[in-house]
Amino acid sequence: MSVLVAQITGMSCNHCLNAVNAALAAVPGIRVESVRIGRAEVELLPGGASPDDVVGAIEGAGYDVSHTDVTG
Amino acid sequence: MSVLVAQITGMSCNHCLNAVNAALAAVPGIRVESVRIGRAEVELLPGGASPDDVVGAIEGAGYDVSHTDVTG
Repeated sequence: MSVLVAQITGMSCNHCLNAVNAALAAVPGIRVESVRIGRAEVELLPGGASPDDVVGAIEGAGYDVSHTDVTG
Repeated sequence: MSVLVAQITGMSCNHCLNAVNAALAAVPGIRVESVRIGRAEVELLPGGASPDDVVGAIEGAGYDVSHTDVTG
């Protein structure tokens, strides 16, 4: 029986930051203010994306959104 | 200008462990021995998957494999 051991790079919390950043970067009509572990902040540009669009992008990247707060 | 703040769950190294575990679980012809940050160990069952299949599954999940070692 063969055993394969793979050394894997990129398994870290940075992977999640990159993944969420990439997902949000693909959403038109927003400006990404900040992404950190557990929290993303974006500006919804006038006539641009809806909150649901933002949540959908994050969930599409494999994460769950437990709460959103929209101000302004 | 509206600002949306999203609280996101699952952004942690556990996300990577889950992602690599799920990717390997989908490969027929192997038995997953262990997955930890930076390293996966699987048995290649006789007539089953090739090392390339395993590497492809890990890379398909968004990670890089820097080195593999097959014994036995």
